[in-house]
Amino acid sequence: MTSSAFSFRVTQTDGGARRGVMTTAHGDVQTPAFMPVGTQGAVKGVTHRDLESVGAEILLSNMYHLYLRPGADLIARRGGLHTFIGWSRPILTDSGGYQIFSLAARRTIDEEGARFRSHLDGSAHLLTPEKAADIQAQLGSDVAMVLDECLAYPSEAGPARQSMERTMRWARRARARFLALYEKRGQAPFSSDGVVVTNPDQAQFGIVQGGVSPELREESARGTVAIGFEAYAIGGLSVGEPGDVMYDIVAGTTRCLPDGRPRYLMGVGTPQDLVESVARGIDLFDCVLPTRNARNGQLFTSEGPINIKNARYAEDDQPADPACGCYTCRTCSRAYLRHLFHVREITASTLNTLHNLHFYLDTLRGIRDAIAFGRFERFRLAFHQRLSRRLHDS
Amino acid sequence: MTSSAFSFRVTQTDGGARRGVMTTAHGDVQTPAFMPVGTQGAVKGVTHRDLESVGAEILLSNMYHLYLRPGADLIARRGGLHTFIGWSRPILTDSGGYQIFSLAARRTIDEEGARFRSHLDGSAHLLTPEKAADIQAQLGSDVAMVLDECLAYPSEAGPARQSMERTMRWARRARARFLALYEKRGQAPFSSDGVVVTNPDQAQFGIVQGGVSPELREESARGTVAIGFEAYAIGGLSVGEPGDVMYDIVAGTTRCLPDGRPRYLMGVGTPQDLVESVARGIDLFDCVLPTRNARNGQLFTSEGPINIKNARYAEDDQPADPACGCYTCRTCSRAYLRHLFHVREITASTLNTLHNLHFYLDTLRGIRDAIAFGRFERFRLAFHQRLSRRLHDS
Repeated sequence: MTSSAFSFRVTQTDGGARRGVMTTAHGDVQTPAFMPVGTQGAVKGVTHRDLESVGAEILLSNMYHLYLRPGADLIARRGGLHTFIGWSRPILTDSGGYQIFSLAARRTIDEEGARFRSHLDGSAHLLTPEKAADIQAQLGSDVAMVLDECLAYPSEAGPARQSMERTMRWARRARARFLALYEKRGQAPFSSDGVVVTNPDQAQFGIVQGGVSPELREESARGTVAIGFEAYAIGGLSVGEPGDVMYDIVAGTTRCLPDGRPRYLMGVGTPQDLVESVARGIDLFDCVLPTRNARNGQLFTSEGPINIKNARYAEDDQPADPACGCYTCRTCSRAYLRHLFHVREITASTLNTLHNLHFYLDTLRGIRDAIAFGRFERFRLAFHQRLSRRLHDS
Repeated sequence: MTSSAFSFRVTQTDGGARRGVMTTAHGDVQTPAFMPVGTQGAVKGVTHRDLESVGAEILLSNMYHLYLRPGADLIARRGGLHTFIGWSRPILTDSGGYQIFSLAARRTIDEEGARFRSHLDGSAHLLTPEKAADIQAQLGSDVAMVLDECLAYPSEAGPARQSMERTMRWARRARARFLALYEKRGQAPFSSDGVVVTNPDQAQFGIVQGGVSPELREESARGTVAIGFEAYAIGGLSVGEPGDVMYDIVAGTTRCLPDGRPRYLMGVGTPQDLVESVARGIDLFDCVLPTRNARNGQLFTSEGPINIKNARYAEDDQPADPACGCYTCRTCSRAYLRHLFHVREITASTLNTLHNLHFYLDTLRGIRDAIAFGRFERFRLAFHQRLSRRLHDS
């Protein structure tokens, strides 16, 4: 591997599932792991100590947003993202391909990169694979993602192939830039080719694309592995395709990825998706579901999601999930949570987010323990059975 | 005193300032004390454990808001406000006189009580002194406030006298109702005159009104004391009158209140107001300033308030207040706080509120220590000098 501090070790396997440790300059991450999404350098509604209290070992942040506000130069002058936001554990930064696709105005993609206007002030920007590498070097995240092109679902075979091939050409350019930046590693921060690098031990992950075509996915996986990254992600899923199509693509793709590197399924998913994807060899996840849905009143529980807005909870003295040990469930009834949501207290977002993140991270703890004891298949069955025990109300 | 668990003991005096302990069924409160405002059963932006972490010993909540949503009957069925919101320390409930005055639509005040329409759904309500006592008995707060009439500033002598006299007549009715409710104390919850009482040890405070007239204030104080309450509050100040006028009214009023009962200055105020009012014999405060201003980006510091929105903080790596030991100041720079505010992260409200509440509660700790060591006058001088050392930017 190129990055000096980055490493990954699989410690147990159980069927297709793996338990491991991903080591970064800012500490270890037990895998399979879920990364809470701190888009703008904070997870909406909770403080870093809340995140630590639910056991988060790694935070995901977003290059696209931070590049627009407060700007990568400003963050580099602060000493990098860890120092700026006061988070000392590992950080992964997404490159912004998906955000350009979903947020930016008047975007045009050509071979050079993505031209777009800021969704905030309309200012014009050109993001190239090289620039995405430079910005993430300034941010100093532990893991940088290459810039990829995201495709709408469904898409025709022709455009899907062209997009996958472009993503691969971009990956080659991103890797070349990354290697040039980190060639002469020094004490951070050091300047490389005019870019202030704030974390000398950054790793870079490639991204497999190819829509829902098994052939394109395999080609993308083999090509991306041939370029050579510290690890590999699967992008462009959970964009509207049926669940079993996604699971098949995940299974097919992980088979083409090296065993000794982490595999990261981007932007996925429901608790069921996590369990099913671990069964197919995934090590890392991120998703806005637990945090965004918390702010909309949806609470994940061991017996399925509940919607705390519902009138039926107005006089319910039980915790959100009687089986849960999080701060919210230890101290708040559904009746109180419903009241807070109903009167639009900020604290509703905090308490709901704390619970949902605890549920996600606890699910991952359960998964890791199950793999360690060779009981993952039993865990998986019990997990799905429990979830289907009651009628969900949201 | 009527309430069995409620008591107050002055442990030290230093000039006009007093240090003491207010005992309630839910624990002790070291005075002088500041009560964070949890209008709807939550302090906006922070969880109860955040409140405990900054040392809050008592919470203020608002009857008017809770009566409208989720309703006093619902809270009584939950076992009272403490159980409903999961806060086990003392709670004081304001009766809603000020909220009817400032929030309600189409309000008319007559001898019977206040008729108004809900600011939420337009529904019609009549709040009488008796009903305000009943609702607070249902809520089961440790301290209930009588319903008072709030007057706009400035007001003519005639209306000011009429309003003060009505508040006093209402106080007599409120006390009679309170005594009737708690006459036959039982194991809580018990039903008294058709009202479910959830805290058998509730105390009731009277409120001194009279605008900025020393004569009316004195008359109101003597009359309210003659009725006889567990303690006395000063209402209707900090509504636009000059600071020295308020301080004079506070000094004149506390002289007419019994030494052995807590004195509560309602809705006040700035850190300077707290110090000056303690010097004039006040024991309890509440105010939305630290919490509301936090959400607007104003941070109180030992050298005066700063406005974190300002561009000058964009690259400032110092904590909000270098002299502060709160979680926010230990972990966040001004640059990060400014970024969070600028991009409208919910966490900005949480971190700013945590800091401001810590500043207020820490100021009260400093005040209590100074009184205990007979150094309050020195503390007061140093406090004002430090605050005036720099040019404030907000």
